[in-house]
Amino acid sequence: MDALIEEVRAYSLACSEGARGSHDWEHTRRVHALCLCIGRAEGADLTVLELAAYLHDIGRSAEDEARGGICHAKRGADMAREFLQVRLDDRKVLQNVIHCIRTHRFRGNAQPKTLEARVLFDADKLDAIGAVGIGRAFQFAGEVGATLHNPSADPVDTLPYTREDTAYREYRIKLSRIHERMLTTEGRRLAEKRHAFMERFFDRFLKEVNGEA
Amino acid sequence: MDALIEEVRAYSLACSEGARGSHDWEHTRRVHALCLCIGRAEGADLTVLELAAYLHDIGRSAEDEARGGICHAKRGADMAREFLQVRLDDRKVLQNVIHCIRTHRFRGNAQPKTLEARVLFDADKLDAIGAVGIGRAFQFAGEVGATLHNPSADPVDTLPYTREDTAYREYRIKLSRIHERMLTTEGRRLAEKRHAFMERFFDRFLKEVNGEA
Repeated sequence: MDALIEEVRAYSLACSEGARGSHDWEHTRRVHALCLCIGRAEGADLTVLELAAYLHDIGRSAEDEARGGICHAKRGADMAREFLQVRLDDRKVLQNVIHCIRTHRFRGNAQPKTLEARVLFDADKLDAIGAVGIGRAFQFAGEVGATLHNPSADPVDTLPYTREDTAYREYRIKLSRIHERMLTTEGRRLAEKRHAFMERFFDRFLKEVNGEA
Repeated sequence: MDALIEEVRAYSLACSEGARGSHDWEHTRRVHALCLCIGRAEGADLTVLELAAYLHDIGRSAEDEARGGICHAKRGADMAREFLQVRLDDRKVLQNVIHCIRTHRFRGNAQPKTLEARVLFDADKLDAIGAVGIGRAFQFAGEVGATLHNPSADPVDTLPYTREDTAYREYRIKLSRIHERMLTTEGRRLAEKRHAFMERFFDRFLKEVNGEA
């Protein structure tokens, strides 16, 4: 199984070529580490998690190229099935890995039904909050040409993928709610810490922007 | 004088058209607010500061277009002289404003010699640290297509304006040293707070990136 995990890792690395810095191979590497960490605490199948973590975002470039017209979780699950079915005999493991990838998306409709799918969901969400989440939100804003902050507008009313798509907008609309959506005990514990750190950051950020610090 | 300040503000806003989010009009607006705040504490000439704050980065687009071949502080001082000399009779104020702009740059050779020039220098540097500085560093990394973090390289050995130009690199090479370079008492007081916040942020960031949080 170690050889397959290595092969899957190399495939995923190749798929991430040219990805945005806010969503590149390092994101996959961090999610893989978080999956093992949460998976151990929750008693999950670590082989399933290693495969699913490495493969969870391989459909990302298809979604980016189609400007959101394709769901990267669905596309990634299809790509993973094609890659794994000729290399993996254990059908239960295969189905679980596909299910994990298919259901990891925050905005998706498909619900994670296995323990491993819940762990991957939490690991992926954890990487969007805390200090890393703050960095990724500003980095993404830079990638789409947004402004640092728009003090004159309610971020909830502003537009994604434009000059208005600020990090604070992402925080208000999505990141500040992630900690309520966690699916495992260990994931929730880690998320509360990261959420509190993020709250302190944006509290200070607004004070500085408004000339109060 | 209020009418001139308003005219200068409009000119600066026009010069900032198309600027990067990490260095746009909002940066000028924040530096203006910080100049007034530090200027009051230090007993500086607030008219000079208002004019200098609004005009300090008007040479930025020339520097960006020349990919660093032009110094924006020098170019901005020339542009400000041209704009102000037909609108401002007070030669002492004019000379001081020009001197402020000419010497505000962190990497520049010209030293700020007036109180107002020291205040502008500090205000501009303050906006590069703290929570706003963290946001701007990641935003800039996104703008130049850098990765979120490069755990395999010493940031000091990596290259600017490339995939390696991470926010952590900017922190290690420049931002972490800014608090030692402040020129006014009030600027130093504010800088120490922002520096401590930034240190806590990157401490946590590295822990998360390394799977320790």
